[in-house]
Amino acid sequence: MATSARRSPHRPDHDVADRSLAGAGEDRIDWADAQMPVVAQVRERFARERPLDGLRIAACLHVTAETGNLVRTLRAGGADVWLAAANPLSTQDDVAAALVVADGVAVHARRGADRGTYLRHQHAAASCGGAGPHLTMDDGGDLLALLLDRDLPASPGGPIPTTDLLGGTEETTTGALRLRLLAERGGLTVPVLAVNEADTHRVVENRHGTGQSALDGLLRATNVLLAGRTVVVVGYGSCGRGVAARARGMGAAVIVCEVDPIRALEAKLEGFDVAPALEAAERGDVFVTVTGNRDVLTREHFERMRDGAILANAGHFDVEISLRDLAAAADGPAVEVRPLVERYVVGGRRLHLLAGGRVVNLAAAEGYPASVMDLSFTNQALAVEALVVDRDRFAPGVHRVPPAMDAEMARLKLSSLGIAIDALSPEQERYGRAWS
Amino acid sequence: MATSARRSPHRPDHDVADRSLAGAGEDRIDWADAQMPVVAQVRERFARERPLDGLRIAACLHVTAETGNLVRTLRAGGADVWLAAANPLSTQDDVAAALVVADGVAVHARRGADRGTYLRHQHAAASCGGAGPHLTMDDGGDLLALLLDRDLPASPGGPIPTTDLLGGTEETTTGALRLRLLAERGGLTVPVLAVNEADTHRVVENRHGTGQSALDGLLRATNVLLAGRTVVVVGYGSCGRGVAARARGMGAAVIVCEVDPIRALEAKLEGFDVAPALEAAERGDVFVTVTGNRDVLTREHFERMRDGAILANAGHFDVEISLRDLAAAADGPAVEVRPLVERYVVGGRRLHLLAGGRVVNLAAAEGYPASVMDLSFTNQALAVEALVVDRDRFAPGVHRVPPAMDAEMARLKLSSLGIAIDALSPEQERYGRAWS
Amino acid sequence: MATSARRSPHRPDHDVADRSLAGAGEDRIDWADAQMPVVAQVRERFARERPLDGLRIAACLHVTAETGNLVRTLRAGGADVWLAAANPLSTQDDVAAALVVADGVAVHARRGADRGTYLRHQHAAASCGGAGPHLTMDDGGDLLALLLDRDLPASPGGPIPTTDLLGGTEETTTGALRLRLLAERGGLTVPVLAVNEADTHRVVENRHGTGQSALDGLLRATNVLLAGRTVVVVGYGSCGRGVAARARGMGAAVIVCEVDPIRALEAKLEGFDVAPALEAAERGDVFVTVTGNRDVLTREHFERMRDGAILANAGHFDVEISLRDLAAAADGPAVEVRPLVERYVVGGRRLHLLAGGRVVNLAAAEGYPASVMDLSFTNQALAVEALVVDRDRFAPGVHRVPPAMDAEMARLKLSSLGIAIDALSPEQERYGRAWS
Amino acid sequence: MATSARRSPHRPDHDVADRSLAGAGEDRIDWADAQMPVVAQVRERFARERPLDGLRIAACLHVTAETGNLVRTLRAGGADVWLAAANPLSTQDDVAAALVVADGVAVHARRGADRGTYLRHQHAAASCGGAGPHLTMDDGGDLLALLLDRDLPASPGGPIPTTDLLGGTEETTTGALRLRLLAERGGLTVPVLAVNEADTHRVVENRHGTGQSALDGLLRATNVLLAGRTVVVVGYGSCGRGVAARARGMGAAVIVCEVDPIRALEAKLEGFDVAPALEAAERGDVFVTVTGNRDVLTREHFERMRDGAILANAGHFDVEISLRDLAAAADGPAVEVRPLVERYVVGGRRLHLLAGGRVVNLAAAEGYPASVMDLSFTNQALAVEALVVDRDRFAPGVHRVPPAMDAEMARLKLSSLGIAIDALSPEQERYGRAWS
Repeated sequence: MATSARRSPHRPDHDVADRSLAGAGEDRIDWADAQMPVVAQVRERFARERPLDGLRIAACLHVTAETGNLVRTLRAGGADVWLAAANPLSTQDDVAAALVVADGVAVHARRGADRGTYLRHQHAAASCGGAGPHLTMDDGGDLLALLLDRDLPASPGGPIPTTDLLGGTEETTTGALRLRLLAERGGLTVPVLAVNEADTHRVVENRHGTGQSALDGLLRATNVLLAGRTVVVVGYGSCGRGVAARARGMGAAVIVCEVDPIRALEAKLEGFDVAPALEAAERGDVFVTVTGNRDVLTREHFERMRDGAILANAGHFDVEISLRDLAAAADGPAVEVRPLVERYVVGGRRLHLLAGGRVVNLAAAEGYPASVMDLSFTNQALAVEALVVDRDRFAPGVHRVPPAMDAEMARLKLSSLGIAIDALSPEQERYGRAWS
Repeated sequence: MATSARRSPHRPDHDVADRSLAGAGEDRIDWADAQMPVVAQVRERFARERPLDGLRIAACLHVTAETGNLVRTLRAGGADVWLAAANPLSTQDDVAAALVVADGVAVHARRGADRGTYLRHQHAAASCGGAGPHLTMDDGGDLLALLLDRDLPASPGGPIPTTDLLGGTEETTTGALRLRLLAERGGLTVPVLAVNEADTHRVVENRHGTGQSALDGLLRATNVLLAGRTVVVVGYGSCGRGVAARARGMGAAVIVCEVDPIRALEAKLEGFDVAPALEAAERGDVFVTVTGNRDVLTREHFERMRDGAILANAGHFDVEISLRDLAAAADGPAVEVRPLVERYVVGGRRLHLLAGGRVVNLAAAEGYPASVMDLSFTNQALAVEALVVDRDRFAPGVHRVPPAMDAEMARLKLSSLGIAIDALSPEQERYGRAWS
Repeated sequence: MATSARRSPHRPDHDVADRSLAGAGEDRIDWADAQMPVVAQVRERFARERPLDGLRIAACLHVTAETGNLVRTLRAGGADVWLAAANPLSTQDDVAAALVVADGVAVHARRGADRGTYLRHQHAAASCGGAGPHLTMDDGGDLLALLLDRDLPASPGGPIPTTDLLGGTEETTTGALRLRLLAERGGLTVPVLAVNEADTHRVVENRHGTGQSALDGLLRATNVLLAGRTVVVVGYGSCGRGVAARARGMGAAVIVCEVDPIRALEAKLEGFDVAPALEAAERGDVFVTVTGNRDVLTREHFERMRDGAILANAGHFDVEISLRDLAAAADGPAVEVRPLVERYVVGGRRLHLLAGGRVVNLAAAEGYPASVMDLSFTNQALAVEALVVDRDRFAPGVHRVPPAMDAEMARLKLSSLGIAIDALSPEQERYGRAWS
Repeated sequence: MATSARRSPHRPDHDVADRSLAGAGEDRIDWADAQMPVVAQVRERFARERPLDGLRIAACLHVTAETGNLVRTLRAGGADVWLAAANPLSTQDDVAAALVVADGVAVHARRGADRGTYLRHQHAAASCGGAGPHLTMDDGGDLLALLLDRDLPASPGGPIPTTDLLGGTEETTTGALRLRLLAERGGLTVPVLAVNEADTHRVVENRHGTGQSALDGLLRATNVLLAGRTVVVVGYGSCGRGVAARARGMGAAVIVCEVDPIRALEAKLEGFDVAPALEAAERGDVFVTVTGNRDVLTREHFERMRDGAILANAGHFDVEISLRDLAAAADGPAVEVRPLVERYVVGGRRLHLLAGGRVVNLAAAEGYPASVMDLSFTNQALAVEALVVDRDRFAPGVHRVPPAMDAEMARLKLSSLGIAIDALSPEQERYGRAWS
């Protein structure tokens, strides 16, 4: 696949907190591995087929046990990997150590690194030891911006060669938007696969990942009994559906608030109560916002809520519950009554805000389960492979994951669950086409 | 709106079985009306706004109580209506009589009419008393074919003027396909709105209409207890999801068979068992096919099924369960053991086929509930109005229902259920756009 | 087992409508047999063990296909059977014919028999050809009353010997009450097993039998879409729980009304809405009473209901919906708008009463599924056997089914579903006893 | 009520870790109070009616925020309270401080106290400042044993007067058993109300409390995605039903294992898969034991389990999963791969034991939610009141909670949820009695 011979970086350049943590990191990666059978399947194939042989990959991802299994998959495929942290607060130092010691990965990540260090780490990953990457893997678009965006101030680390650059992957909506804007300005000279724009992603991560983990965060923060309570879910997109289904599954009565009439009708026909947010404000015990929009719960809602109401946000940004309005409506400053639970008193009634309105599944629980990340990271691994193997299919720009790859992920996931499915016979294929 | 003055056909041309049935027809239409609040809302607005004033509408629909309420809505909007039957077996003679007597509708329909009469009726409706229609409403594309398809043999009733023709609506997938083929051949000179291609239609009719009525047909035909049984749902499209959800709701264990891996994964993550059909054949008590494809259950499946298995089809055509294979596998001829239940003995085990493999919700129950037809017929009424009011927006050809009309239907349906929803504030509109 | 030699009545005394219907009756019994695997298991064992050899059984039951399979089981066990109808309206004449022709059962039953004939039939069954029965099987207590109640007027057929009488079974609550009153008066000289007082009966028949069939009756009568509707279930006993669970399973929002606070709390914690009936009256679309009490919905409720409301009763007697109040509240007489659907107009709003307030699963559907009767009739067969084999265990009086027999029925039912379960080890038995 | 004048112990005798923690304790008690509206209702009534005026109560309970609200309720009713810890590991030192400082409660409890201190604390509570208690509240039977059991070694603190003793309450099954044994030996001279033997307790605490909190513990310990997984629930009593319902509610397929055929049949008819544990061992991803018995999962099960299986216990004692067998079956010692997750490798497959097999909702989460404790502690408060107000109704011995008190609790709980229910009319009362 690649012209240069593969050189395993036996002594990789790296900057991690403590190499002696490698053993603990191994255990952690191993636990995650038991939850990530799909990535494991890909890893086994990669080890046989070596599709990434000799390629340099620069990755800027959350340095966690799940990422560790992704990186090992890339290594199994033959790649050399340089890894920096997408966010210094999410770095697991023991995992970073294990990847250096056991896998020869060039990790540049320390938990809690200051901004200067953090940027230096990104530069180190992007430069791939000076030669520049064949491929990038982004979680926010940082690496490709560093490599390609001429409008950014020059990196203090100096320019990085992009001669060998074949393309990159991007994990987040925000990053994909940023790279599309770069493309509009003519700066995106390679193809990028937006791995979160896949049907499997929507199903597995949005609905089931968010659904379970938002409830999990809610319970860890409050330990309230949901059976018999009224949970108001604001927003009935793919994430909101997951939250509503799980809240009902815990025995709660669920009220859905939604501005889109078709979604609202779907919710109603699925047996949920549907009401405007002001009405729901008077009836709910627990409120979960998951709209992707801002100022969804504001002063007029807070003023109608009952004593003891709980407010949580499961949307990406902390703008859904208006913190300004909440502070303004309150009789005094907030008091932390449990870790991650602040009490505001509004008109004599106690309202409890969870995790300061930040996304509750990350702030109060552990974010997506490993088996959800399993699919996201399979997506990453297959996308990287496609950018090499099918490089002629992708023009410069941001692309959705091809449908066939999407289906392949679902198939691998099913297989990991021990499930086989049927295929259409040729006659059925023909019959189906006649009607579509 | 229309150039000609409105002439209500006080003594409409008509051909119905028995005008004295009108009273019974009124009761039936009234019962349906109580289930069709959305059409009623549209009817009230039409009565105020008269958007169809003086227009001639030719309709070829199932002549049922639900259709009666649609026709009354068109009349309230100011139209003269000529109505023929889409299928002579579905005609309710009392409804036909009531529409003639009470509403002055030119009904040409008799239950059980022979083919000659049936075609004469269609021609009478299409000709609108000789002047030809402004608008057509089809359930299979017959009227527009009659009016526009030059490749068909000339109608014995002679050519019909199409000078005033503005467009038409079509209710079925089959009809839309037929009209698209006509368009490819250059014959479709007016716009057609395919009302079944709406999101509300998919949600309300496919999922909930099919889901409930397929189970209803199954219970009416067999009276089996579903709790504790294993129901195999073959196909997990929008109809199959409905069937699976309802079967689970009756206490059954559900196995989903599906060839699309993404759909199969969705089913699995929603807690259903997922298996290949051959494996499911050995484990199921009740089988419901709903794939839209053919030969879904064949000899190899029948030979694995357990004693007492029940076979039903909820797909449109009776090709999903292979009747040829079933007869071939059986030890002898089928015996009807209950109305609509035939027993085949395969290898000593009793298999029970429902309704000869025809669509079980129509053959063994009453098809979609009136409140489902409520939305479908609202769709029809709004589509007719749009073809008049927004006539400049639609080029000749078959069109999906516009998204705004789709949303409007959902809004009306919610309103009929007593449900209000919120709207985005201008700031939220802007914020949302920034991310989409 | 029995003292007299077994004489199979080759030419049984009988009185049925038409012996030539026997073939149709066979098909019907066979279909029911496919749904009654538990009775079939018992029948196979009875055929091997012949526990009823030479005994005379007098049975007064609904003469249906399900009963046919019970009678065949008794025959397989060696008994001679005389069968009369518990209700002449439920008699299936073809089944009656088949039991005479194929099984040599002395059937005395004709559909629609007048009262004189009906009583003569009971007497014929009770007398067992003049010798009197060893065992009776009652569905309302008629046979034992005829045999033992000295306070009743003398039967015109003359006294029947009770010398050989060992005991009887009773299927209904009403019959058990009647026999307990007889016992209080000192008239019950033999043991009676009340087969409906079993845990399996409560679970299978009340919850699942009533739950499904009440919904079935509702749909057959109205064909309303339940998804998105609000169903009010009045009464949350074992039947009401079944109705509520199934209504939710069809996509309805469910409001439970209940006077017992513990049951109400259970409903609330299971996610149902709970409200007083007057409040529910204003919010419901469909009302199902299942309290076992009277005047549950009265004028004050009717006057609050919404246009289009549907009223159904799933309780045993037609006293739960006050028909007197409904007539009094209505603006005029009721009009039948569909078979089994009467429209009352109350304050301008249309209320629809199903089946005249009679139990909707029997009046509008087919009552309990055969697989529910499977368990009830297994209960009958095992009870008859116990009265013979364990005759020393039962004193005169009405008894609950022994727990071990109850467990045995559940075990047989599970086995018929292909399900095995574990048993406690001796150590676990000991450990469990230490804590109970 | 009481003869002595009420003396609030302004400077109560006490032994707590740090009185300066009182402020933090207040916040914690206040958060719990927002979850305990039923206790709050009782407290308000107690403050008006003062049913415990001047009484001395000795309580040996878990010293937590929820208990804080119970104790405040007793204080509001007029009692002086001495409080010791039922278990030194569960003591919240800040709550202990707040109860001393703000409420004048004589708290004797320190987190982590050694055995000597712990016993001294119990003695201090039991002696009530030397006068002995009017009432005791036990969580394991310690106080009454200390006061009444002559077979125990004499307390080093000396004998305590029992002259004024009216009775006591007991919270646990173990404690009730212990006190019944004491009664058999003739030592129990006062009535004891076993508050956990109430229907509301079974519904709220067993089903819903255990159901949610067992899942919560599972997720906190593992963060596995339950959707699409197979969860095996061993035991289908009131706790097992809760676990099964919640696991299904999270999207899991659920297999129930049960030795009681009636319970197994119930599970099957509710749509669960039912199988013997050995078969389930091969199919499950997650195993939750909740039988109340021992050695439920043993070597033969472990040897069949799949790679990655997770083992949790939700029963009271850590004997359900055989730790001895697990260690014996494993290839080597267990490794902790996450906090509370130990990995055993059995035949090359990784099995993960949670919390060492201890009850997972307490060991990995926070035990019952406060709103569950709300009902348990309402039970305690009402039981204490009944022992005073209705003292003539209770003979010495251990008693179930009276049904009327049980119903009253449910009514208060409903009221706290804002729910009213109907009452039977006198006619309905009569009608109901006629049939029971």
